[in-house]
Formats: sequence, C-alpha cells, structure tokens
Amino acid sequence: MEKINLVIEKALGTVSRETVFGLQDKAAKGMEQLHQGTGQGNDFLGWLNLPSEISDADLTEIETAARNLQSRCEIVVVIGIGGSYLGAKAVIEAMSNGFEHLRKQHNAPIVLFAGQNIGEDYLYELQDLLTDKQFGIVVISKSGTTTEPAIAFRLLKEQLEKQVGKEEAGCRIIAVTDAAKGALRKLADTEGYKTFVIADNVGGRFSVLTPVGLLPIAIAGFDIRALVAGACDMQKACGADVPFEQNPAMLYAATRNALYQAGKKTEILVNFNPKLHYFAEWWKQLYGESEGKEHLGIFPAAVDFTTDLHSMGQWIQEGERTIFETVLSVKEMQHKVTIPTDSDNLDGLNYLAGKRVDEVNKMAELGTQIAHVDGGVPNIKIEIPALTERYLGQLIYFFEKACGISGYILDVNPFNQPGVEAYKRNMFALLNKPGYEAESKAIRERL
Amino acid sequence: MEKINLVIEKALGTVSRETVFGLQDKAAKGMEQLHQGTGQGNDFLGWLNLPSEISDADLTEIETAARNLQSRCEIVVVIGIGGSYLGAKAVIEAMSNGFEHLRKQHNAPIVLFAGQNIGEDYLYELQDLLTDKQFGIVVISKSGTTTEPAIAFRLLKEQLEKQVGKEEAGCRIIAVTDAAKGALRKLADTEGYKTFVIADNVGGRFSVLTPVGLLPIAIAGFDIRALVAGACDMQKACGADVPFEQNPAMLYAATRNALYQAGKKTEILVNFNPKLHYFAEWWKQLYGESEGKEHLGIFPAAVDFTTDLHSMGQWIQEGERTIFETVLSVKEMQHKVTIPTDSDNLDGLNYLAGKRVDEVNKMAELGTQIAHVDGGVPNIKIEIPALTERYLGQLIYFFEKACGISGYILDVNPFNQPGVEAYKRNMFALLNKPGYEAESKAIRERL
Repeated sequence: MEKINLVIEKALGTVSRETVFGLQDKAAKGMEQLHQGTGQGNDFLGWLNLPSEISDADLTEIETAARNLQSRCEIVVVIGIGGSYLGAKAVIEAMSNGFEHLRKQHNAPIVLFAGQNIGEDYLYELQDLLTDKQFGIVVISKSGTTTEPAIAFRLLKEQLEKQVGKEEAGCRIIAVTDAAKGALRKLADTEGYKTFVIADNVGGRFSVLTPVGLLPIAIAGFDIRALVAGACDMQKACGADVPFEQNPAMLYAATRNALYQAGKKTEILVNFNPKLHYFAEWWKQLYGESEGKEHLGIFPAAVDFTTDLHSMGQWIQEGERTIFETVLSVKEMQHKVTIPTDSDNLDGLNYLAGKRVDEVNKMAELGTQIAHVDGGVPNIKIEIPALTERYLGQLIYFFEKACGISGYILDVNPFNQPGVEAYKRNMFALLNKPGYEAESKAIRERL
Repeated sequence: MEKINLVIEKALGTVSRETVFGLQDKAAKGMEQLHQGTGQGNDFLGWLNLPSEISDADLTEIETAARNLQSRCEIVVVIGIGGSYLGAKAVIEAMSNGFEHLRKQHNAPIVLFAGQNIGEDYLYELQDLLTDKQFGIVVISKSGTTTEPAIAFRLLKEQLEKQVGKEEAGCRIIAVTDAAKGALRKLADTEGYKTFVIADNVGGRFSVLTPVGLLPIAIAGFDIRALVAGACDMQKACGADVPFEQNPAMLYAATRNALYQAGKKTEILVNFNPKLHYFAEWWKQLYGESEGKEHLGIFPAAVDFTTDLHSMGQWIQEGERTIFETVLSVKEMQHKVTIPTDSDNLDGLNYLAGKRVDEVNKMAELGTQIAHVDGGVPNIKIEIPALTERYLGQLIYFFEKACGISGYILDVNPFNQPGVEAYKRNMFALLNKPGYEAESKAIRERL
C-alpha cells in the first residue's frame, strides 16, 4: 500500500537538520509518554491505538445504522460542534463532488450540519429548507447540554416529530453520546433512539475515527473501512518502534518545534485542492486546541492555493518572516480535464494546450514552493497519493500522532482545553443560567 | 440613515488612548496623501471617490446586463481570481440564503465561481454540472491572460458554444476587462460580447464597487444601488474633513497600528454570523496584500464564532499574546427563531425557552469579548445594524479607506503587490512559457 510521505528538506535552512535532529530525544520522550501513558493528559489517550482496535462488528454496526438513515432520508443533519463536527465535515468535503448540492441526483443523503453555531438566520433557513424534505438527525454530544447543539437539537427534533410523527422520528434520530450518563443518553434511552458511544478517553478533536466521525461519513456514502485501514497504516508507520528518521509523526513534530523555537510563530497549512479546505479547519482545531496554552503554541492558519496566492500570497512572500508552510500535495486527481487548443490564441495559452489542468497546478505548486522558500518561508510538504478514504485515514492518524508528540515536546498538556470554558462561563452568567447566580451578579457589575 | 459603528474601547489597555491618539498626525498625513495623491501608489487611487462618482447610468447599464443574463440563465459562472472574485463572493454570500443551492426555487441565477483556482477536479465537476444547465459567463480579467481565469474561460466558453451555439453564447458572455488593450478586450470586441471596463486606477482588491463586483452581485439578485449608497455614507463619514476622533477609518487605522507596534502581530477578524465568512476572506486580501511587504504588516486571520470557539478558541484564550480581534457584530437578524419549551427539560435549556436564538448568540459574543479581553486579547468591535446591501456597502468603503490610511501609517505602498509575481514567474518558467526561456533554464538547474 502506498503511503502519504513527509518531506522536510525545504524547511531546512532556517533551521538545520542538526537542530531538528536535536529534538530527537524530546520526540522519543513524547512517544514514550504517549505509549506508556505517563505524560500530561494521559486519561485521554484512547485515540492512540484506536484504528487497530476498531472491530469489524463496530464498523458493521455503523454501516447498518447509516443504511437505515440512507433509506429514510434525503438530508441528514449532523448536530455537533468542535470535534463533533470538524472531522466528519473534513472527510465528507474532501470526498464529495464540489457541486453536490446543485446536482439533481445524489448517491447518498446530503449531510448538513447544525449546532456548530448559534446563527438565528442559519437555523431559520435550515428549518425552512427541511420543511418539505425527508430528513434525519445525528446528534453528537457527550453531555447533551452543550449550548449550541442542544438548541439545534431542540428545534430540529420538534420539527421532525411534527413532520413525520414521533415514532418515525425515533427511527430517524441517532444519538452519539456518553455510554451511561448525561442528558442525551437519558433522552435517547427514553425515546429508544439508536445510540453510539463517545468513549471517556477520546477527546473531541481526536474523535473522527470513532462513531462521532465515522457515522456521518458512512451516511454520506463513503468507505469508513478504507478510512480506518488508512489510519492503521499510519498507526504502524508512526509506531513507537519506528526510528526517528523514518517516523513521519516524530519528524513533523520535531521540525515544527524547531521552527517555532527559531521564531516561526505561525504555521500555514496549504492546499492546492479546494476539497481540502475543511481538512485544514480540522487540523486547526487539532493543533490550536492542543498547543495553544500557557501563552505558548504555534498559531495555526490555512490557505487554499492558488486562490489565496492572489490574497494572502503577498503577505506570505514579503510580510514578517515569522511563518512557515506545510503543504498538502495531492498527487493524482480523480478526473481528467485537458486544456484545449484555440486557433486564435488571443489569451496566449496555446503553450499549455494538450496539458492536463493539474499539470499546471503542479507547476504552480512547485513554483510557489521555490518562491516562498527563496522569500524566507520554510516549507514542509506532505505528499498524498490521491484523495481517497484510505489516504485521508492515513493523514488523520499521522496528524493526531504528531500532535501528541509535538505537544509533549512543547511541554504542554496536548489533551485538555481549559481556555474553552472562559467564554462559556461568561455566557451562562449573562444568560442567568441556573447555578450561575454568583457569576451573573459579578459579571453584571462589570458591564 | 443608521451607520456601522466602530468601538475601540476594549482595545485600550494593551495600548492607551494616548498611544492611539499619538498616531493622529500620521493618520492625518495618510488621509492627506490619499486625497492629494502624494503618497506611494498614487496611480491607484480611483477607488477613493468612486462611490459618489458612480452615475445612475452606470448602475442602469449594469442592471440591464444583469437582467439579460437572469432571463437566459439558471447558473452564471463568474470567472476571476483575487480581487476579481472575492468582493462579489463576499457580498453574495452575506446576502444569500445559507442553503440556496439546495432550494428548489431561486429568485435569481445561482452564481458560481471559476478561474479562482487550478483545480482539475473542480473544473471537471463544474463542467459536468453545467452539462444540462442553461448557463452564462462573466469573465473578469484586466489582461485576459492571467493563467487561472484564462484556463477556466477557454474551457467554459468552448462548452457554452457547444451547448447553445456561438450566437447565443455571445449573448450569455459578459467581459469585464481593460477599456482598450489586452487579450480579453480584443476577444470581446471580436465576438461582440457586452463589456464593462476595469479602470486603470483601481486595483483588484479595491474593485468591488466597480462592475467587477457590482455585475455579479446584481446578477445574483441583490441591490447594487443600496450597496453604492452605503459606500457613499462612509465616503462622507470617513472624509478628509471629519476629525480624527469621529473618523472611523482614521481611528481603526491608528488603533491597529498602535497594537501592531505593541507586538500584536496578528489581527483576527471575528464574525458571529456564518454569512460573513467570505467577507473576512475579502478583508484578508485587502489588508494582507496592502500591508504585507518589506517584512512588515499585521498577519490577517479570520474565525467564525461560535463555531471556532470550539477550535481556535483555546489558542486565542491562552496561546501567545500576540493577537488582537476585530469583531463584526450584526445587530438585527433577518429571521426570528424562538427556543421552544420542553416539559422534560433533560437538556436543561428551559432557562432559555422563549428567547430568540440570537439573544443567546449575543451573550456568547459579549461573554467572549469579556473572556478574551481578560485573557489579554485587545478587542475592536464594528457594529453593523443588519446584513443589508446598504450596510455592507458602508463596511466595504470603511475598510478600504482605513486600509489606505493604515498602509501609509506603516509607511508601505498599500496599492502594489510585487510579491504576487514571484510564484507566477517560477510557474511560467517551469511550464516553458514563451518568453521565459532564460528563466526556464535557470529554474531547471535548481531542481
């Protein structure tokens, strides 16, 4: 099986190979902390051996539930936020036709998302759309009380029950939640919903290979077995027994930390394929939430090239020299488009006639790499053979494993997110949530 | 007429009011350079008085051309990149139903974009979609030879002519290009396309209020007269005769430069309304391309909240203290959704029952502002009465004017983009473009 491939050569210059390899011991220590469970946040290591631990029965159960919704629904709304949203969104967008919503026929239900914002117009327009549609719901929440998904679920559950009756609605709602406790578990058991479990030891941003990600991806019609097989490929390739110089997770973790120590404070994840836009959003959560603490951490940003070469390209080429790029480079396209000849050649493009569009894109990519490296932007490249479930699975696990190691090199707890609570506490206080009386009083005095 | 409103109070702390007002003279100098045309890049100041100079006849001509395409097409593909793409995209996304592509009926043609990337699968899937559609094309390019749009136009022009014949295709293609010279002008004149002119003195990122932006926006069914009227509001409010402390463009320019001088190297444009996602992309080009040069410039980033509070929120709350936020706060929603009561109240949301969803969103916004300011993230806020064409027009001109002043405070040329050429030169060399023989040889020796 071909694999994704990490290339760090064009990052060396700002930092030397010796500097990167100087972090070898720290990376090895991080690897050991992950596998021995001796590091910070070690109660959230369930993702580490997850790919190889998923059973055939687990996958069959997900596929069966997906088929049930597929047979009943033209639209499935996935309700979740953060890690309960981004993984599924990333894979579905990467695998889907870019104009799927405008097509007349679909191979599987359209998967939409809700509860990932508190947009009143968003919810109104979604509910309006669903009025004459056969829809179902996958609601994903460990507790069932996270504000955004809870509001969306209240609204859409009520609508679904009105449209198809309580019994059929019960067959069209699947809950992904805690095994035993919490509001959503209780509701799901009461209503008899099909459920899947969010394990206690897998944090949201590491959950795409659990039912949190796999169920929506399966509903959208994609091959979750291949996705998991890809993750297994990388579980092996990034294993504790693979030496530093051959271990892409360790190498990526060490390289980005070396660059960070050298003053490269922002990492820009680059794609040359618009389908990877949301994969970058998933990556931003994974790294930003894992490392952005204790006033530390690389700032994760993302661009879609060549689109953004005509936007952020100027800044990247000539702005402050505090950035590096990590490029997701997809080797083979799914489809073939050849540039036609034009007898008049007014646009001067005949020198490209007969070439595939992607050949031009690849030269844009190479030309950009050379220009940016020349301009002082170190470049890491991740080669992806093609946009398939298998390679996306590889990419996902590779980034997860590297993230754990990278966080330990940085010496933070990569598995908590204490800062996410701050806005919630204020919001609850401002909304007079029961139990927040003291906070309500305190915050009002500050306004 | 109500106006957008700039609030800088929560940015003061990291920098004092005195520090911001200390830049008053520089801001005034920048204002003078713009209005006297004495600053760097003064051959690109056509945007400055544009709103008040657009005539009724100009708008009527655009509306007439838009109606022609509306009557013939269910889809209009706008071909352009950078400034020939982002302005129209930003306004159309802000004004459209979030699920427009899935609706059965549309009030106006669906506007899609092409030539903003070199995605082979993107173009394949677009062409596949258009096979059985009545479509038209707006092609936007000053020269007609920019690689991305030129490739897309070759492909789509050929397809359109095949589908409806050369004559009807000629009625469905509009070119926005140079007044007299260049490949697209020549082609358009030969083929008899309807054309609009890209003025020599308006750069791409300042072009949304020219036919570059106005024509696609009108085709999508939105009110370009209100958009221009909004821009006129701000042309007045940000005029040279409005003193510093009342002039939002000067105040914003001074505040962000004061923060930058104090080590806040990244500005995050925040929205709490997903419809503004692409407005932030437009803003990123405007500021990134104007200021990111000479190894200077604030790094422009963007987030959609509350979505990204569960992603980038952790980093923003507790990562490196080198960022500030500028929040686009929309006061009134278009639609009303009330949170229902639930007798069981398992999700504990009954304390919100009867409230509008947006009330919760507003408390999330306020709670976030307090949390982030407490965490050391200065906060600039721009209040927008509602998402209408008028206020979007205000917002556009405000940001443009402030950008010119801000670039002059930074002492760079805000109107050029020399760095964008670097990747193009390499790409042409790698693709053996005629005229690049020496560069081709040189770059191949480096590979």
